[in-house]
Amino acid sequence: MANKNGVEWSIRVGDGSLVVLEPEHKNGVMRLWDRLKGLVVKFVTKVWKFLKQAWDLGVDDPRKVFHCLKVGVALMVVSLFYYMRPLYDGVGGSAIWAVMTVVVVFEYTVGGTLYKCLNRICATFLAGFLALGIHWVASHSGHRFEPYIMGISLFVLASATTFSRFIPVVKARFDYGCTIFILTYSLVSVSGYRVEHLLNVAHERLSTIIIGTCLCIITSMLVFPVWAGKELHLLIPRNMDKLAKSLDCCVADYFGHGDDESKKTLNGYKCVLNSKASEEAMANFARWEPAHGRFNFRHPWKNYLKIGASSRSCAYCIETLTSCLDSKNQVPESIKNHLSSACMNLSSSSSSAMRELAKIVSTMTRSAKIDMVVEEMKNAVQELQNDLQSLPDLLIQPHDVVVKEEESTTPNSPDKTTELVQSEVTVMPLMEVIPLVSFASLLIETASRIEESVVKAVEELAESARFKQAEDEMKPKHNQTTSKIASDEV
Amino acid sequence: MANKNGVEWSIRVGDGSLVVLEPEHKNGVMRLWDRLKGLVVKFVTKVWKFLKQAWDLGVDDPRKVFHCLKVGVALMVVSLFYYMRPLYDGVGGSAIWAVMTVVVVFEYTVGGTLYKCLNRICATFLAGFLALGIHWVASHSGHRFEPYIMGISLFVLASATTFSRFIPVVKARFDYGCTIFILTYSLVSVSGYRVEHLLNVAHERLSTIIIGTCLCIITSMLVFPVWAGKELHLLIPRNMDKLAKSLDCCVADYFGHGDDESKKTLNGYKCVLNSKASEEAMANFARWEPAHGRFNFRHPWKNYLKIGASSRSCAYCIETLTSCLDSKNQVPESIKNHLSSACMNLSSSSSSAMRELAKIVSTMTRSAKIDMVVEEMKNAVQELQNDLQSLPDLLIQPHDVVVKEEESTTPNSPDKTTELVQSEVTVMPLMEVIPLVSFASLLIETASRIEESVVKAVEELAESARFKQAEDEMKPKHNQTTSKIASDEV
Repeated sequence: MANKNGVEWSIRVGDGSLVVLEPEHKNGVMRLWDRLKGLVVKFVTKVWKFLKQAWDLGVDDPRKVFHCLKVGVALMVVSLFYYMRPLYDGVGGSAIWAVMTVVVVFEYTVGGTLYKCLNRICATFLAGFLALGIHWVASHSGHRFEPYIMGISLFVLASATTFSRFIPVVKARFDYGCTIFILTYSLVSVSGYRVEHLLNVAHERLSTIIIGTCLCIITSMLVFPVWAGKELHLLIPRNMDKLAKSLDCCVADYFGHGDDESKKTLNGYKCVLNSKASEEAMANFARWEPAHGRFNFRHPWKNYLKIGASSRSCAYCIETLTSCLDSKNQVPESIKNHLSSACMNLSSSSSSAMRELAKIVSTMTRSAKIDMVVEEMKNAVQELQNDLQSLPDLLIQPHDVVVKEEESTTPNSPDKTTELVQSEVTVMPLMEVIPLVSFASLLIETASRIEESVVKAVEELAESARFKQAEDEMKPKHNQTTSKIASDEV
Repeated sequence: MANKNGVEWSIRVGDGSLVVLEPEHKNGVMRLWDRLKGLVVKFVTKVWKFLKQAWDLGVDDPRKVFHCLKVGVALMVVSLFYYMRPLYDGVGGSAIWAVMTVVVVFEYTVGGTLYKCLNRICATFLAGFLALGIHWVASHSGHRFEPYIMGISLFVLASATTFSRFIPVVKARFDYGCTIFILTYSLVSVSGYRVEHLLNVAHERLSTIIIGTCLCIITSMLVFPVWAGKELHLLIPRNMDKLAKSLDCCVADYFGHGDDESKKTLNGYKCVLNSKASEEAMANFARWEPAHGRFNFRHPWKNYLKIGASSRSCAYCIETLTSCLDSKNQVPESIKNHLSSACMNLSSSSSSAMRELAKIVSTMTRSAKIDMVVEEMKNAVQELQNDLQSLPDLLIQPHDVVVKEEESTTPNSPDKTTELVQSEVTVMPLMEVIPLVSFASLLIETASRIEESVVKAVEELAESARFKQAEDEMKPKHNQTTSKIASDEV
């Protein structure tokens, strides 16, 4: 396009509008200014988005905000100590270790903090002790050999400890301890060569670390504590409930009873698919926690992991089940109607079994209803299987019986053909039914996984954690007795 | 049991043998000795098992041993510096920070080390700068306000930084940096109140950290480097191969062609189910790595995660598929034989498609064969669907046609019944076939996931990482040309 003043370039952007490019004679400063403005706007929107995300996070779980305030308070307290001289005068420049400990050791959960604290103290103690011993041996073997002995011992210990971190058991329980062990050993052994008051270094470091860890433990345990064990205890039934909801939504959607809102609920199972890592981390931390709430020190956290694994195996099934939703429209309505009630029944009984199991875990009370609910689920499986069994009757639709009778006038003629009954059998194409059949059998598989694996895992937990007996269990018995007495009286 | 000398107690242990309990008059020292011996034996066997596990780990992956030796060497070198005075004279007591940096920063992969090094340097620089600035402001606002300003700034910064660690993006890329930021800020601000040479503290700390990180980076990059990117690049196709093998084994086992050795191969898919966390960690580290081998600095590692996710969705399907193995004996052999070849064909074409895709990823070369292989897989799906469609013919077995003809002497009598053709139809119980039908439809689902999700993800990677064109692609064209010329000549 050309106008009288010169050439004007325009460009058609994504939304169809024309943007006129700025003519060349616009001065350079202005263009730079525009570009800068663009950058600033981009930066501000990015920061805004980040802040929005952070705000949502805080609103979603205010305990995270409390955790941050706790860290701030702990650091303030330890640095106040430092300002106010008692800690400083006591252990001198080493007081910095107390500050450092607080920064490094404070974790979100009590278990995480305890894990780090205990690892730090034990590893520091062990490494300091060992460094002092080897330093003593080295200093008694002559000035010439001293650096060699110290160097080689450092090499061997550091290598061995680093290697041990690859071993799963050590990795899970003592990973942080290993780092601190190497750190302390190298610090003490290296300064040991210079500083004459070696015992003092070791003693100061240990005592400041103890001050720091005590402060952390107290803050994390007494001010709005977040217990890893309790978190795990809440997470497992929450995941089970999500599975139950997903299952319900999926089957309702298949038979056309779903609404738009259920899409989000349907995808709940996805959280469960990848929950292994976080469950294991929580169980690892929970191991370090003292008795709290309804949990003893040696609460069987491992059993929670088993329940988690078995709910995950159900989640795999549900994942495959949801992919059947794509083919739901291939199935003829008549066949769907035939199985719909049995499928809905099975899904609702499976999900109520899952919910009942979740309730057992979350209330830590055995359920009187669970046997009944599982029995109901089994019956629903049987019902669905019966309906599947009667499917062929539907598939083979006997058409109108055609009766042809050609009565010839001469009854004895050889070409007489009398077809009184001819039943024509039409078989509905099996391909149209297969998606529904496989959907139904996946439902049955899900139910059997709940029955075989989840129920078992929950029972094991109930056994090893000595869950309370259900209160309602007494009532029916009482009712029975009274009715018996009543009938005796009558 | 009682003998003449007194009472002897025996106990029947698990394996059925009788163990005679030691009589009371055995002296106390001996019993203590026995108990001690038991404890020692138990301890020794435990240590032995632990060592065995460590040995196996080292034999399994010698690079882990190299890593440990590298850590040892790096620590030795940095402490030698310390012994030999250059580092010590240059920066004095702060040299200890160099040692500390090496211990804390050295990770197994180059990416992990770089992530920690860069985080450490940047966070230290930023926090030091900020602390100096705020200290300057505080010292100019009067002696009375100084501790308050320092304390409050520490509280705010520590809380905010701790909170930002909860945000997923920050957690993935700057988690370590956040810790170091708080650490450095609190160290500098706390010592700033005491030490007069504040600039010196900051400068020394920064320079020693740079010495430590440089040593770590050099050691980890030059001596037997383990690149996170390369590991991820190897892991993804390895997992895909495992899936292919599992699929083959599962189908072979279902139709009775499996052997005992295949059990282990069958379970290969389980590694893939829970690989998300490690894949993400590797991709996070790989982001920090410079160009190495065939990978540029901005290699699209995210696409590897996509491939990982889509192979995982196949793994969920295979997991459900393997649970069908329990019901394989319910299906009548005749029906199994009908579908066996189509199923075997589909599984082998799916697994070869998976292998071809794995090959594309591992060789970073587009394949000329892939379209053909996917086409073959589609054909196999069609073949299986056809076989399923013809299943009803098998299910409905027309029995011997019964021809009954009652010819009455009086042709016109009303009770004359002439049944010339009566076809009796028996339907095989559908319940026996359902397990096989759902097995087949799961196989089809697996194939469709490979086609829709894995192929797409691999293509995206090939696109964004600009994979080489396959060499064989030229050959057919060349042949075509020559044959064209030949035909022209004729």
